[in-house]
This record gives sequence, structure tokens and C-alpha cells, in this order.
Amino acid sequence: MPTNLGSAYKKILERYKNIAVLGSTEAIVQWDMETKMPPKAVQLRSEQLALLSEIHHKMATSPTMGKLLDEIFKHPQYETLNEVEKRNVQLIKKNYDEQTKLPSKLVSAITRQQTISVNTWKKAKAQKDYALFKPELEKLVNLNKQAAQILMKVKETKVPYDALVDFYEPKMTAQAISVVFGDLQAGLEKLLEKITHATSQPIVGILAREVSPDKQEKIANRLMQTLGYEVPPSPTAGGRLDETEHPFTTGFYDDVRITTHYYPDMFASSIFSVLHETGHALYEQGLPQEWKYQPIGAGCSMGIHESQSRFYENVIGRSQEFWTPLLPKVKAAAAPSLNQLELGKFIRAINAVKPSKIRIEADEVTYCLHIIIRFQIEREVFADKLGVDELPHVWNEKYKQALGVKIENDSEGVMQDTHWASGYYGYFPTYALGNIYSGQIIAALQKANPAWRSELAQGNLANSKKWLNSAIYSRGNLYDPAVLVKKATGTPLTVKPYLSYLEEKFKGLYGF
Amino acid sequence: MPTNLGSAYKKILERYKNIAVLGSTEAIVQWDMETKMPPKAVQLRSEQLALLSEIHHKMATSPTMGKLLDEIFKHPQYETLNEVEKRNVQLIKKNYDEQTKLPSKLVSAITRQQTISVNTWKKAKAQKDYALFKPELEKLVNLNKQAAQILMKVKETKVPYDALVDFYEPKMTAQAISVVFGDLQAGLEKLLEKITHATSQPIVGILAREVSPDKQEKIANRLMQTLGYEVPPSPTAGGRLDETEHPFTTGFYDDVRITTHYYPDMFASSIFSVLHETGHALYEQGLPQEWKYQPIGAGCSMGIHESQSRFYENVIGRSQEFWTPLLPKVKAAAAPSLNQLELGKFIRAINAVKPSKIRIEADEVTYCLHIIIRFQIEREVFADKLGVDELPHVWNEKYKQALGVKIENDSEGVMQDTHWASGYYGYFPTYALGNIYSGQIIAALQKANPAWRSELAQGNLANSKKWLNSAIYSRGNLYDPAVLVKKATGTPLTVKPYLSYLEEKFKGLYGF
Repeated sequence: MPTNLGSAYKKILERYKNIAVLGSTEAIVQWDMETKMPPKAVQLRSEQLALLSEIHHKMATSPTMGKLLDEIFKHPQYETLNEVEKRNVQLIKKNYDEQTKLPSKLVSAITRQQTISVNTWKKAKAQKDYALFKPELEKLVNLNKQAAQILMKVKETKVPYDALVDFYEPKMTAQAISVVFGDLQAGLEKLLEKITHATSQPIVGILAREVSPDKQEKIANRLMQTLGYEVPPSPTAGGRLDETEHPFTTGFYDDVRITTHYYPDMFASSIFSVLHETGHALYEQGLPQEWKYQPIGAGCSMGIHESQSRFYENVIGRSQEFWTPLLPKVKAAAAPSLNQLELGKFIRAINAVKPSKIRIEADEVTYCLHIIIRFQIEREVFADKLGVDELPHVWNEKYKQALGVKIENDSEGVMQDTHWASGYYGYFPTYALGNIYSGQIIAALQKANPAWRSELAQGNLANSKKWLNSAIYSRGNLYDPAVLVKKATGTPLTVKPYLSYLEEKFKGLYGF
Repeated sequence: MPTNLGSAYKKILERYKNIAVLGSTEAIVQWDMETKMPPKAVQLRSEQLALLSEIHHKMATSPTMGKLLDEIFKHPQYETLNEVEKRNVQLIKKNYDEQTKLPSKLVSAITRQQTISVNTWKKAKAQKDYALFKPELEKLVNLNKQAAQILMKVKETKVPYDALVDFYEPKMTAQAISVVFGDLQAGLEKLLEKITHATSQPIVGILAREVSPDKQEKIANRLMQTLGYEVPPSPTAGGRLDETEHPFTTGFYDDVRITTHYYPDMFASSIFSVLHETGHALYEQGLPQEWKYQPIGAGCSMGIHESQSRFYENVIGRSQEFWTPLLPKVKAAAAPSLNQLELGKFIRAINAVKPSKIRIEADEVTYCLHIIIRFQIEREVFADKLGVDELPHVWNEKYKQALGVKIENDSEGVMQDTHWASGYYGYFPTYALGNIYSGQIIAALQKANPAWRSELAQGNLANSKKWLNSAIYSRGNLYDPAVLVKKATGTPLTVKPYLSYLEEKFKGLYGF
């Protein structure tokens, strides 16, 4: 590298390191708010977070940052940068452009409207009153349409909606999503048909037994130990488990924390949220240490993240193999609450398929149908083909058609999730993409190590973890998700392996 | 206020607000480090704290800050500012001068040496090897001597040591401390003599019984409830209680958290640390809401802070009145562990006086003697009259003389506390000043409400809390501690009330 290009590169990475460190600090403060903060501190906490976010924004958009980017990208020897260096500066530039090209008036209007929309959504959901929510949602959608118009030029996307999707799944397009979601929907509906008509149905009632939060925590510790996610008091722990209303994962490298919720009458709920969040956490902890404070040292996308959480929650966590060595240990941890649980019946019960109205309660087969409906609606809204006032009607129609359920009110319908109230447009598709990716991952893992399932049945995850690490984790954010998926699994985006996985699994369980 | 003076004042307060909010955020991140952080995160956390501290320093010393201060202090209408406004800008200026007048090379040398000295101290203490610690302590002392020389001019103190004391107890001087500490030592030694020779001695053995951490936590909750310090799950809580190796209080207004340590075989330890830290916390929570983000909205000094913690720990917390209604409730919370405890014997046992080697285990009578020794040594060191190599010898001599105990090794002697290793010179005196202030507070409270002790015996703290609020809390940092003490208690600094309080109390307990 010629000297001044090298020094600009070094300087910009130093600045990026501060941004990354500050971001990890904000995560701690957010985590504290969700888990430990005394209720009286709400107002003070919002001041603290607003200040950190203002400092963060100033650091990411400082004129010096712009000057350094200019120096680097206009440098005659730019092409001498290697792949890693180029990716680092491209990622910094992308973020810089996103944050500087939007007028600050628009950004603060969106921030303000988000707070209003979320608060109104909470009220409206409690009162089952979409009419109350509608005007605030409409304002937020319109502001985001303006932003999408501007970002579309910055990001050079074909349609405005793609510029929003790009925040969560870089370079993914509505067009590409449409194609795979079409295949996915057809496959799922066919499978659902078979499952619904199978003569042998699982007895889900065996999961309805009281297990105290204390015992559920012991089960959670067993699970985390099995997956190799360490929490205190282990002296080498880089994680934590706490309880919150809604489970989440947050953190950075050596400090990645998960949460769960213990329902005394639904012990399986915390089992699967712990497995899901541990999947996210292991990915974050497995990112390459040598890239820790660089843009390439981050997770690749929300979809790739979700592929990891769903892999541990569903592929591993709802398999007979996983539970064969584990169930006796879990029963011991929760004794005597689960003493009567039989492995076979347990596996069938935790894999029960039943179309339902609420996404976060959906089973493995119907889950993606919830997502596809949301994607179809979002896409139409941002193409100005669907008005915010039409959402409940369209939503209810789609639920009837795809899932055969009748939505009784908008709180169990279009208002069930916070995403649209919070301004996360283009986020939903990543949930289903994660599942699709996880199918490709299974196929690739199976090819690389045909013994992985029998190893799992021995309680041995070492080789599978090693494979995930080398195929996914170790690549950090060096590639856009489509490229990463190709490199990790050998095939471009395809729903086939995911559908085959489901077909085979549920055939075995339901015997159709 | 003329317009541009008013606008400069407004701007500087806005900047100060950001500094205060950032400071409160740092406190949360520090708290997390002590209580919840996974051990693997140590290195990341030091990056996070270093970054926050760098941002904090930049905000507090920005050229704009200097310009605004200039505008205000050189303004022809400066005198039109009222008392509150003047105090605010004076406090900002004081901090600005302290932080800008020290060469940044010296500041970073001190920061670096602190880390080295603390780490060396830990090793040396474990190995009982002062020779290992000495060179690192010497470097840190010498760096602080350089800083004190510079700060002496900034703060216009008579001797360098006073410039260090001023950080913790503004405007207090070694000379003034010497005078009151002289009276205090004489009084304590006389009292100790009487106590030691009293025929009736308490049976401390009754405190040596196993109480599980769970039960100790229940006791702690009872205590906090009695003092009106709310923790989750109370929906109006502005506090928290967690467990750490060493108890502390941290936080800001609506989020002030305390910690304690549960020793299964010393349940009284957590009782008194909870009372002590709650005293600190109630002071912070009681600071005037209308001054929340202004310099005057902070606590006054470390000494005043300690007066509040010691008031709750000792004056209230070791009194017969406090325990009369409370002991049955505490026994119920810890049942059956403390069922045999009798009120009279309990009160005598928690007030047992016995000269000892370790400051943090000292009783109410001998505690200040530990402090006086440290002050005498610090003062000589910073007057270049005592070398760091002489410390163990001088320490041991003083302990023999004042407390009659023989120090066997330097880990139970000069190396017992972290303060000197951490660079906190001039801090120790505030512990004893706090006790002296608490004596003046008792006298003033007694005068304002002669019924306060009988109210306490009814479990009613409302009037005493109200008085503390109006005399101390509500004044925030509007005055330097000497002025505050005069305003709150009606008398300038004097040890008499504190000695009278001790004399009367221990006469009753020991019957001399």
C-alpha cells in the first residue's frame, strides 16, 4: 500500500473501532434497561440513550470520516487494497452514505414518529382499535417512503422497498424474495395439507404441566451447557441468561447476552427461546477475534443470523437425536416435574403442526406462511399499491386463504407485531430467509459430515459447531449474504433443501 | 440578565447536562462490570470505559466550554447572576480549570501508573510483600505530587496536599482537619479507655450463626423498606440491591443502586452495609429534581455523603430504638435462623468495641482512629517529610500507639486499603469528617424535633427523613461543605456533638 493510502486506511479503522466500541456500550445500556433498570429511571435512560446515539451519529458522519473516505476511494492506488481492506472501507462508506444522505430533518421526524407510533400501537392493540393506530402508522409509513426514495438512489436499488430491505439483508431484492417465497409457500401448503390429514396426530397436552421458573432455569442451564454457551459463574463465561418479557440476544464478541421468559405452565416456551437465542449468541461469539473492531468483524445479515438461531432452535432443538441423551438430564434438572415425559411423545408434541393466528407462537411448518403474508403486504404498501387503511382487510383475507384461520379482531391480526409500529419495514422477510438458509446449511453440513446426526445423538456437537464456525462465523461480514450462502453451502439461494428437510422430518413424525 | 450573558449561561448548562448524562451512563456501565458482566468481557469493558472517559473529558474541556466560561466571567453584568447561577458557573469553571491546567502527558502518566500500582498492590498484598509494591506506589505518589503542585496554584491552596483534599472535600484544609482530628483523637482515646475497662462487656458470639444468603436478602429487603429505599419489583422503585465483593452505591437521581455482600457466617455484615449504602442512596435520590442536570444538583462532598451513610448505619442502625419495632420482623424474615436473638443482647453485640487492625471491620469508636493515622501519614508524605519506604514502620508504630495492636505483616497493615494504590490521596479524611458531621446533624435534628428518637422507636422515620431532606438533600451542591454544615446544623465544624453522642451511647451500653 502506498504510504498515504495506508495511513488513511489506518485512521479510518481507528475511527471505526471507536464507533464499534460505542455501539457495544449502547447495547449494554439497552440490556440494562430491559433487564435490571429500576422503573423510575425510564426518563433518565431515554436521555442517556439519546445522548449516546447522538454521539454515535456524530462519530459515524463526521466530516473527517468523509474526507478519509474520499482520500481512499479516489486514491490512484485504491485497487492495491486487498479483499479485506476493500470490504472494510466499502462497508464504512455504505454506512456513511446512508447516514449522511438523508436530510437530518427527515431522520428526526422519523425518530419522533416512531415513538408516537409505538405508543399508539400499544394503546390500540390493548383496545383492539385499528382506527386509533391507523393515522400514526400512516405517517410513519409515509416518512419511510420518503426515506426509501432517497436511499434508493444512494443504494442504487430498482424499487424503494429494496432500499429498506437492504438495511437488514444487504443486496437482497423484493423480486428475488418473491421467487423463493413463491416456491416456499407452494411447498409448505402442500406439506401442511399432508400433515393436517395424517391419521396419527401428536398429543400436545403432555407439555401442559407446571414447571417452576427455578426449575426452568436449571433446564436452561443444561441446554446452554450442551451447546457450549457459557454463563456465570463459569470463570470463562462470555454470556449471560436473564429473564425479560420478550426473549432477545444482544452484545459483542466476549459479552453476548441472551434472555428468556419463564411461563410456569408452558415450560417448552423457555426451552425453545433459550435454544433460539443461544444460536444467535454463538454466532456473535464466534465472529473472528482478529476482526473484532472492524466492519468485517460483524454478523453478515439478519437473515444469516436467523439461520443460526433457527438451526439451534428447530433443526437441532426439535430433533430426536438432540433429545436422546439430553432428556434424562433435563428431567433430572427439573425433577420431579417432568418425570413422566417420554422421549417419543415429547418429540412429537414439540413438533406439533397447527395453523394459528399469532406468528411468534407458530410451528416450524406454518411459521414462514406468516412471514410471506407480511412481505406481500409490505411490498405492496411501499409500491403505493396498498393503502394503510386497507391493511386489516387484506391481512384477514390472506390469513384465511393461507392458514385457514379467521381473524376475530386486529389485535390478533394486523396489530400483533411491533415491527410496523416501530418502523422496521423490510425486516420481516429475513425471518423466512433465515429458515431457507438453514435448509441449505443442513444439506451442506450433511455432505461435509454425514455422521453429524449420529454424533448429535451421542451428545456430541463438536464437529457440527466446527463446521458452522468455518462455513459461517469465521467469514464475519466479509460478504453480502447471497455470496456467503453460496460460499458456505455451495449453492445459491434455494428453498429445496429446506423443504426436503421439512418433508422428511414431518413424514417421520406424522407417518403420511 | 442581559441577553448574551443569558444565552451563554443557557448554552453552558446545556453542555453540562450532556456531561452529567454521560457521567450517569458511565456509572451504569461500571455497575454492570461489578455486578453482571461475564468474566470474559474484561478487556472489552476497559475499551468501553476508556472511550466513554475520553468523550467525557473532551466534552468537559472543549474550547467552546472555555469560551463560554470566558464570556460569562468577563461579562460586565456578571454580578447580575443570582446565587444559583453563580454557583453553577463557578463549579463548571472549577472543573474546567482542574481538567485543563494539568498537562495531558501528566494525566495519562497518572492513569497508566494507577493501573500498574493497583495490579501490583493486589499481588503484593496476596504475597505480604511491601517491597514489591513500594516502587510502584512511589511512582504514583511522585506523579500526584507533581499534579498537586500545579493544582495548588489553580485552586489557590496553602499546601499541595490541600489541592488533593479539595477534590473530595472542597475548600477543606489539612490545617483545619488537624485541629478537629486532634480533638477527636483525644476524645476517642478517653472513651476507649473507659469502654475497655468497663466491667460489663457484650457477648459478640451471639452474632456468629449461619444465615443463608437468601435469608439475608430478605432481611435486607426489610431494612430497605423501613428506610423507604425502593427496589424492584416495586413499580415505583428508583433503586436496586445486588451482591458484589465490596459494597458500594452508584447512580444518579432516579436510578441509584446499592450492593452488599452476604457472608453466611456473619449476617450482621450485610445488615450494616445495606444500611450504610442506603444512606448514600437516599441522599442521591433526595437531591433536588429541579437541579437534576445542573452542577448544583450533585451531592456536596464525600464527607457530607459519608455523614448520611454513617447516620443510617450507626446513629439509626445501631440504636435500640430502630431495632425495637424491627427485630421481630427481621426474625420473621430469617426464620428460624435468628429466633433466639434477644433485643438487648443484640444491641450490645452490634455495638461491641474492640481495637482491631482492619479499618473496614472497625467499630464505631475506633473507626476514626484508623482514619486519623492515614491522614497523618498522607499529610507528611505530601509535605515531603515522609518517604514511601518508611510507611510500614510509621504505620505499625501508630497502630501500636493509638490502637494498641501489633501489625504482623503489611497486608494487614499499610497495604490493607486500595486507596493509595489507586491514587486517592486526600480521600481518607472524609470518612472521619462524615462521622463528625453526623454528630452535628444529630444535635440539630434533636433540637428541631426532640421526639425523633421516640418516633424511631415507633418505626416512624418520616420526620427525621423530612428534616434531612430540608437540611441537607435539598441544598444539593449549592454550598461548599463547611457552609452547608453551618447552614444545616447552625454550628461550624466541631467534634463536640459527635463525642457527646458516642459518650452518651456507650455509657448506656457499657455502664461505665
